[in-house]
Amino acid sequence: MSHHGHFIFELPTRIEFGSGSLANVAQRVIELGGNRVLIVTDEVLAAIGIVDRVTTVLDEAKIEHVMFTDVEPEPEAAGVHAGADLLMSSECDLVIAIGGGSVLDTGKSISLMSRNPGHIREYAGLGVPASSGVPVIAIPTTAGTGSEAAIWAVISEKAQQTKYGVGGPHMTADLALCDPDLSVSLPPRLTAVAGMDALAHALESYVNKATQPISEALSEKSMELVARSLREAVWGADTLAARSDMLLASTMAAAAFNPTRLGLAHALAMPLGAKAKIPHGDVISILLPEVMRFNVVGNPSKFAKIAEIFGERTSAMSQRRAADAGVGAVDQLVTDIAAPRHLGEYGVAPEHLQALAEEAMTSGNIAVNPRAATAADLVGIMRRCL
Amino acid sequence: MSHHGHFIFELPTRIEFGSGSLANVAQRVIELGGNRVLIVTDEVLAAIGIVDRVTTVLDEAKIEHVMFTDVEPEPEAAGVHAGADLLMSSECDLVIAIGGGSVLDTGKSISLMSRNPGHIREYAGLGVPASSGVPVIAIPTTAGTGSEAAIWAVISEKAQQTKYGVGGPHMTADLALCDPDLSVSLPPRLTAVAGMDALAHALESYVNKATQPISEALSEKSMELVARSLREAVWGADTLAARSDMLLASTMAAAAFNPTRLGLAHALAMPLGAKAKIPHGDVISILLPEVMRFNVVGNPSKFAKIAEIFGERTSAMSQRRAADAGVGAVDQLVTDIAAPRHLGEYGVAPEHLQALAEEAMTSGNIAVNPRAATAADLVGIMRRCL
Ligand SMILES: [Fe+2]
Ligand SMILES: [Fe+2]
Repeated sequence: MSHHGHFIFELPTRIEFGSGSLANVAQRVIELGGNRVLIVTDEVLAAIGIVDRVTTVLDEAKIEHVMFTDVEPEPEAAGVHAGADLLMSSECDLVIAIGGGSVLDTGKSISLMSRNPGHIREYAGLGVPASSGVPVIAIPTTAGTGSEAAIWAVISEKAQQTKYGVGGPHMTADLALCDPDLSVSLPPRLTAVAGMDALAHALESYVNKATQPISEALSEKSMELVARSLREAVWGADTLAARSDMLLASTMAAAAFNPTRLGLAHALAMPLGAKAKIPHGDVISILLPEVMRFNVVGNPSKFAKIAEIFGERTSAMSQRRAADAGVGAVDQLVTDIAAPRHLGEYGVAPEHLQALAEEAMTSGNIAVNPRAATAADLVGIMRRCL
Repeated sequence: MSHHGHFIFELPTRIEFGSGSLANVAQRVIELGGNRVLIVTDEVLAAIGIVDRVTTVLDEAKIEHVMFTDVEPEPEAAGVHAGADLLMSSECDLVIAIGGGSVLDTGKSISLMSRNPGHIREYAGLGVPASSGVPVIAIPTTAGTGSEAAIWAVISEKAQQTKYGVGGPHMTADLALCDPDLSVSLPPRLTAVAGMDALAHALESYVNKATQPISEALSEKSMELVARSLREAVWGADTLAARSDMLLASTMAAAAFNPTRLGLAHALAMPLGAKAKIPHGDVISILLPEVMRFNVVGNPSKFAKIAEIFGERTSAMSQRRAADAGVGAVDQLVTDIAAPRHLGEYGVAPEHLQALAEEAMTSGNIAVNPRAATAADLVGIMRRCL
């Protein structure tokens, strides 16, 4: 036994969780000092009435609000700046972002750019922005990205085929308002890939070189919740309990990975998102089992613990066999929830792999991966996922 | 399976952990905007050179500092006000508190009262103070109270035989600087009772009615660390690894109980501290096994999980037997570390119990206890500990 290494843990976001907690949103706006709210969401959520649940509560409390719905999947920098301009011209002093990861990333970015000069791409990396934005309440409607509790937002510039993360203490929501009622009607396919993203956050943080005890505790609980409830969230009839587990798993995973970063699946997801336009949850679902197969020898004791968390009977196995059982358990989950398996279905071809691998090698997630990886290794992982 | 209830989780304190991390203290003062530091500690720590380790680093960075060492065990309100007066008259703008729980509680309270009017007793309870104090860096030298990460400070007025908690978002350190090097020379007896206090924080939070999934994850990891390392921290020769586990256990337990409160052991510890003058760790060590025996029927599944965490072989047991094994594991630990067992050794007599029980019934820890308790129940628990 050796003593724990040096680490820093912080959770800048207050987490409020529970079925029905959306009803508290007006009270939370008042507590955060908000007078005029910019609601950031997308056209779909506005159309199906999810956003009405927020505006009804705000109206009852006579809190003024302005709507910004111009958010697309894999959000654009231009949209962030349009939103920040609207926030300033309409004199809003608080953002409520309600939606999936793209909406929450946009909401946090709008807040940030309403109080920092220049273009958001100048703030790519960790800890660059100098000033915090206006207060942000993040309300997730999917259980996957964990953006509501994460210190990162991922922004795209599709014309440039580029995608970058902006991270740090100013890229946080003040309050993550997590109401599982909002995700009960999410279709199976989206539930599945979002759930795999949450699992990848907990798991890549857990096995990587920068992990630390508080993150490990959160990752273990998060993976337990996914192992127990993702299948039921995808296929079940009355899913509130399973949705509740998955939303909690997603939020806790973000709290875990904030100080540790992730691993190869997330390093590869950036260029595969930007160049091949594969949605984030899809590419993570495809890559995670193959990345685990590559990484298992880098941290067998942790992969053996993953097997236990997934309920594999490991007591009669060697650690090495138990570690493989951990990989097998996640692979079985991908099959069971019918998550995507093949990059080829999204148009990725062998001749693309070298350039994608080289771009992935620039990610901050490479250095912390549990097994040292070269561009050739990344090409191999992607080839096995074609 | 039912969905999780409503809960709020927040961790207002940044945690920096690791052997040698004390060397970063000047840098952290600068990051928090401090120019002139009030160092809060006690005469013993000043005499044995622990405080010199801080002043050496500050001197090298040319950061001015003023010393306040008038802290006694179970700190007095008068000392808090003397410290706040010194902070203001010497124009300090940051507090470094280095010591055990009494010192850290005093440091946080001095900061608070330097920016709030009146007497600290007016702020007893949860969430009363209106303004935050100056930034606080809390450096624990024992592994037990978790004050470095807790939202509470416990203050005494011995002339009135009274003791109260002052809690809330303003009673927090900005940074918990946790360096296990500082606790390696703590004697066995103090290590034992401090360790039992840490365990009681994790455990009372874990089984109580207000617990919630994020606290549970932190409590489980904290109890794992205590089960693995408290005996070695008390009796071992080269204890840095065990001290490191215990310090982490203590800090994580505080993060767990902040939003949940505790249980009967802590409800009883207040009057037994104030009236019978029993040091906090001692009274917790005495009470915890007996409180567990009373509570086990209130939450058998959690007590069975405690047995597992302590390494009991529960797979062939009924849940009820496993729950008893959890109580037995903690009872064995108290024996193994030679922690105190009897209230009578501190002068508590049968005729004192009714008044002590009635005062304990006013505690906020009563309502969350896993089994409803009356004053007569509390008398019974104390009688079995005489
Ligand atoms: Fe992700
Ligand atoms: Fe305590």
